[in-house]
Amino acid sequence: MTGTLTIAGLGPGDEALITPEVSAALGNATDIVGYAPYVTRVPPRDGLTLHPSDNRVELQRAGEALRLASEGRHVVVVSSGDPGVFAMASAVFEALESVPQWHDLPIRVLPGITAMLAAAASAGAPLGHDFCAINLSDNLKPWPLIEQRLRLAAGADFAIAMYNPRSASRPEGFARTLAILREAGCSERIVIFARAVSTPEQRIETVLLRDARPEMADMRTMVIVCNSTTRRVGRWVYAPRQVR
Amino acid sequence: MTGTLTIAGLGPGDEALITPEVSAALGNATDIVGYAPYVTRVPPRDGLTLHPSDNRVELQRAGEALRLASEGRHVVVVSSGDPGVFAMASAVFEALESVPQWHDLPIRVLPGITAMLAAAASAGAPLGHDFCAINLSDNLKPWPLIEQRLRLAAGADFAIAMYNPRSASRPEGFARTLAILREAGCSERIVIFARAVSTPEQRIETVLLRDARPEMADMRTMVIVCNSTTRRVGRWVYAPRQVR
Repeated sequence: MTGTLTIAGLGPGDEALITPEVSAALGNATDIVGYAPYVTRVPPRDGLTLHPSDNRVELQRAGEALRLASEGRHVVVVSSGDPGVFAMASAVFEALESVPQWHDLPIRVLPGITAMLAAAASAGAPLGHDFCAINLSDNLKPWPLIEQRLRLAAGADFAIAMYNPRSASRPEGFARTLAILREAGCSERIVIFARAVSTPEQRIETVLLRDARPEMADMRTMVIVCNSTTRRVGRWVYAPRQVR
Repeated sequence: MTGTLTIAGLGPGDEALITPEVSAALGNATDIVGYAPYVTRVPPRDGLTLHPSDNRVELQRAGEALRLASEGRHVVVVSSGDPGVFAMASAVFEALESVPQWHDLPIRVLPGITAMLAAAASAGAPLGHDFCAINLSDNLKPWPLIEQRLRLAAGADFAIAMYNPRSASRPEGFARTLAILREAGCSERIVIFARAVSTPEQRIETVLLRDARPEMADMRTMVIVCNSTTRRVGRWVYAPRQVR
């Protein structure tokens, strides 16, 4: 068995944010597996087979990648951002669990620039103090758990990076998120809406949470609710290092 | 005024984890400012002045960088990891706040692979579900706030990435951290000790929290306390995507 499986992060969109480690893995691959819009980011070349797939088939896609690697292929599973943050790495290990004969496959996880880091950098330094990251999609967890985490995160005065804040099929969750945070006393916190970060369509908006409206976010938006000490300087937003 | 200030992340140590965006900025710089061990990572060349400084002088260093940029230099402030996560970006904006005439300086923040992403990738996918990042140093915040955040993070069942877990001057904080998490019911959670990730000295250890000892961590260690659903497959540790 000489195949390999590499789980790689393509970063938020800009080519200049793809690490050389990931570029090298893509250059050595025989097969690229992933959600179609991410696979499309890999330039085609002779000897490289692209395997684009639909959304919400992560486990099948992971199983297919493992099967190809077990047959001796050099497979790269691509995610946007970092593969370990709400992306394909967990799905691959879940698929691996069910097939013990594949446990010895050479697997590597290559980190990438996850959306919250790029969004934070574009706005200043809102993650300069303690923070948390919450996936607002309730496809894979019960909504009450999300609400509980939001309340505890507000109580901890964490900056809160929100992945997948809003989609056409879940329009109401983000409105409830804003309402919960207002109830939790966060109305005066700064909120960053960072859409399509590092792409030509990038748009950064900052408002106070009391003025934030659900329609400011869509599935291409990273929302960062800053901690209570975060302030503005010029066009920037930053979390002071010192908290008394 | 034609100077520029760029705040760049060098990633956790391996050159292959430095983004091309950061490499380009280093290549165009006239001045590199930062903590000495990070400045040392930038190869010297003609026309480039290195300004290494000591630890714990972040604000002076930031002010010096802004002054150089205001004089027309192309300054890159370097941090390891991501500059926005417990690193120099917040210090630069803090220094900027006190000098209004510098508010229009062209500033860019360039994200990097922060230690927790590299540590997570080396161990599997422990950050595949909701998580938080806490700096365990109490140099810049009161220790009781750290304790409160640990308890709330445990209650939220976040994976907890711990930066600066332990230093010679603060040997006791991490021992208390482990005790607090045991009291909070986390004894059966998996803990990852990831030391010097992506360098030749890399060492990854995983144990249950009940078996974790304070001396397993030092200042070069990233500690990730996994969430309660995280499990092992082969040599890997991963957070399942689905939580019921």
